[in-house]
Parts: sequence; C-alpha cells; structure tokens
Amino acid sequence: ELIPYYHTRYPEEEMATRSREFYELLRQRRSVRSISEEQVPMEVIENVIKAAGTAPSGAHTEPWTFVVVKDPVVKHKIREIIEEEEEINYMKRMGRRWVTDLKKLRTNWIKEYLDTAPVLILIFKQVHGFAENGRRKVHYYNEISVSIACGILLSALQNAGLVTVTTTPLNCGPRLRVLLDRPTNEKLLVLLPVGYPGKEALVPNLSRKALDQIMVTV
Amino acid sequence: ELIPYYHTRYPEEEMATRSREFYELLRQRRSVRSISEEQVPMEVIENVIKAAGTAPSGAHTEPWTFVVVKDPVVKHKIREIIEEEEEINYMKRMGRRWVTDLKKLRTNWIKEYLDTAPVLILIFKQVHGFAENGRRKVHYYNEISVSIACGILLSALQNAGLVTVTTTPLNCGPRLRVLLDRPTNEKLLVLLPVGYPGKEALVPNLSRKALDQIMVTV
Ligand SMILES: Cc1cc2nc3c(=O)[nH]c(=O)nc-3n(C[C@H](O)[C@H](O)[C@H](O)COP(=O)(O)O)c2cc1C
Ligand SMILES: Cc1cc2nc3c(=O)[nH]c(=O)nc-3n(C[C@H](O)[C@H](O)[C@H](O)COP(=O)(O)O)c2cc1C
Repeated sequence: ELIPYYHTRYPEEEMATRSREFYELLRQRRSVRSISEEQVPMEVIENVIKAAGTAPSGAHTEPWTFVVVKDPVVKHKIREIIEEEEEINYMKRMGRRWVTDLKKLRTNWIKEYLDTAPVLILIFKQVHGFAENGRRKVHYYNEISVSIACGILLSALQNAGLVTVTTTPLNCGPRLRVLLDRPTNEKLLVLLPVGYPGKEALVPNLSRKALDQIMVTV
Repeated sequence: ELIPYYHTRYPEEEMATRSREFYELLRQRRSVRSISEEQVPMEVIENVIKAAGTAPSGAHTEPWTFVVVKDPVVKHKIREIIEEEEEINYMKRMGRRWVTDLKKLRTNWIKEYLDTAPVLILIFKQVHGFAENGRRKVHYYNEISVSIACGILLSALQNAGLVTVTTTPLNCGPRLRVLLDRPTNEKLLVLLPVGYPGKEALVPNLSRKALDQIMVTV
C-alpha cells in the first residue's frame, strides 16, 4: 500500500542556515574517554534511541537491539570482560602495527569509563530474524543498517549535549552477548559509554580532513 | 598530544526538549523513490557532506570518499549500469524470497530517480589506505565507520529538508568505480539520489518498531 509523502520544505536561505548549523553542532563532537559518574536523564536516552530507530534498513528489517546498561554490577562485569580481552589483544593477539596505530589516540586496555559512565549502550545487529513460521528471515545489509542507526544515535547524543566514545570491544562480543542474555542471532556491533565528560577531560589533538579531501564532484 | 575537551552542556529540561525535537524531525524521514528534477543549492550538499566528515572512524582513518554526481550524462550512465545489473538480479541472480521480501516496498529495477535527482551522492569506503612510504595502511572497521558517516549524512539531509533513498546497487560497485575513476582501494557502499520529492510522491505505508521492541534496559 502506498501513501502520500508529506514533505517539509524550507526556503533556500533557511536550508543553507540549517545545514551550516547542523555541521557546526556536529563538528564539536569528539570521542571522550573520560566520563563523569553523574546521572543522565533517562528520557534523553530514550529519545536518542527512538531517533536511532528511525534509521533506514535493508528491506525494512530494523535489525537492531539497543541494550541500555545502568546496573553498576553489570557495568563492572562488562568492564572485567573487556579489560581481560583487551589486555590479551594489546599484549599478544594484535601485531605491533595495531598498537602503534593506536598510540596517537592514547588508548590502552584500562577502560575506567565502563564503571563511571551512568549508561552503557550496547548496540547489537541481528544477523538474521525469524519469520512467522519460525524460519530464518534474511537481514539484508544488517551491519550497514545498524551502523547507520548508530550514526544517527551519535548525532542525537551530540545534539542533546551528551558525550560518548564509539568502541568495538575486540573478541568480547560472545561473552557480552551471554552476559546480557541476548539471543544467538544478535552480534555486538559497538559499545557506547554515555554521560557527561569527566572533569578536565582531555582528547587527542586530531584534525579532520578538509572537504576537498573527502568530496569529489563530477 | 592531548588537549582540553570543550563541552556544551544544556540544562536538563533543554536536553529533553532538544532530544525530543530531534526525534520528531528524524521520524519524518522516509526513503523517497520519486525525486524532482529541481536543482538543489550546492552549499547545502557541501554542508551535509562536511557533517558526514565529522563522523568517528576506527583509529581516525576517515576512510570515506563522497562522489557528488551532477553531470546528466554521467547520471544517465550510472542509471544504465544499475538498471542492467538490477534486472539480472531480479530475474536471475536472486531467489524468489528476495523478490517477495521487496514486494512490499514496491521497488523494481526501473530507477528513474537516477536521471531526475539533481545530485547523486555515491559513498565509497576505502578498504585500506596508504602510508607515507606507499605501503598499505589498515583501515580498521571501515564499513562500520563509513556507514556511521552515512547515518550522519542522512540526518543532515533530513535536517535541511532534502530527501533521498539509501540504495545498495547490487553487483554494480566495480563498474561504477571504474566509471567514476575511483582507485581500487575504494568500494561503493551506498548510492543516495538527493533532491526534493517528486510531485505527489508516494511512499510505502510502513510502521516502525516501538521503543520497547528495540530497547532493553539492564
Ligand atoms: C543498507 C540499506 C540498503 C538499502 N537498499 C535499498 C535499495 O537498494 N533500493 C531501495 O529502494 N531501498 C533500499 N533501502 C531503503 C529501505 O528499503 C528503507 O529504508 C526501508 O524500507 C524503510 O523505509 P524508510 O527508509 O522510509 O523508513 C536500503 C536501506 C538500507 C539501510
Ligand atoms: C567503528 C569504530 C570503532 C572504534 N573503536 C574504538 C575503540 O575500540 N576504542 C576507542 O577508544 N576508540 C574507538 N573508536 C573511536 C575513534 O578512535 C575516534 O572516532 C577517532 O580517533 C576520531 O576521533 P573523534 O571521534 O574524536 O573525531 C572507534 C570509532 C569507530 C567509528
């Protein structure tokens, strides 16, 4: 069934202003690895996840689950799993190149933010779904779809004045899935510790590519 | 080198309002498959791509290239490649299940919007980069990073009052890469025809999952 699409159109000047202001907002975003213990309003967390849930998805499969962890005991268990695996990653599994590539970001395997952040959002992709008859339902492009939803979520967090760091805890997916009691068709995509920045939070002094390095016009 | 992170903090009530309004804006987004020939301001296209370029990326590799196609001849060549491949996909390559899954979206292999949309944005992921010495540089999680950038771009388009449909032209990547003269380390991720909706544009009457179907609290 097809229905009319209702469109909100702005005058050209307003489009230019809105697009400029959105860019100005988003360019302030940084990955913040020091997060304060202060609580955040749950209504805001719900709204950013609702925003993420408006994302497009291959064949409208909506293949995402957002697990919001507030329980300090569970947060600490997550930290233990991640630090254990990450230490092995740094010390043994990954080559010297990986460790060198990360040096400029000043990351290591100590993840205090997993305890301090009032909220952890673990985003799972559903690598397949289930049809009415119980058979597997294909989830076309599930990783792209869920990552797009994650991009919207990051925009929404920035718009609300909350900070996070996008993390991909290497080799931790299976243990975290079991800890959080998620079904086997779900795989961890990213983990976002969310909150306010810690006092005097520092970030690496990175610069971003200029427009002419990322855009080509034909 | 680490530098202070400057944070903009809003009062709690304002955070709630901002997050609600952002959700209200984004829930209006729909994939629009009928796009008007009307031109769009290039400044807006540049700003949405600048916004996308603020995305986080694995080890800050920024592994994206946004190819903006305005030339009608090139747009038409893109349409020819995609319709040719898509017809084969529909008729031969994909199983009956795929075609059935797409039926509710009323999509087929005729893609008029590739001619009519004033701008096509082709987003390429750089599956690896190059170090100063010419050797390959690993691009950790490049697909996730570029898809996150795509999610930000979709938010920015919606914020500016432009429409698109996220498309993944199956099996067309290599031919489009050659047509657009992109290097072999770049692979097409998605193609976005961008513009204003066509007159009386219709969209499938889809509903989205409710919050309690996508969010779990622990
Ligand atoms: C990764 C991805 C691939 C998609 N591929 C196509 C496509 O090739 N053709 C198309 O018409 N729509 C495509 N879509 C759009 C989806 O069908 C659409 O997002 C979904 O039906 C939900 O509708 P909405 O975007 O209006 O909410 C794709 C979406 C995503 C996220
Ligand atoms: C897919 C992905 C995975 C990432 N993984 C990690 C991670 O495991 N740990 C971490 O500290 N940062 C991680 N990051 C954050 C990047 O290091 C960060 O985005 C990049 O250095 C740019 O900094 P910015 O986000 O402040 O612009 C990841 C980012 C992305 C997009």
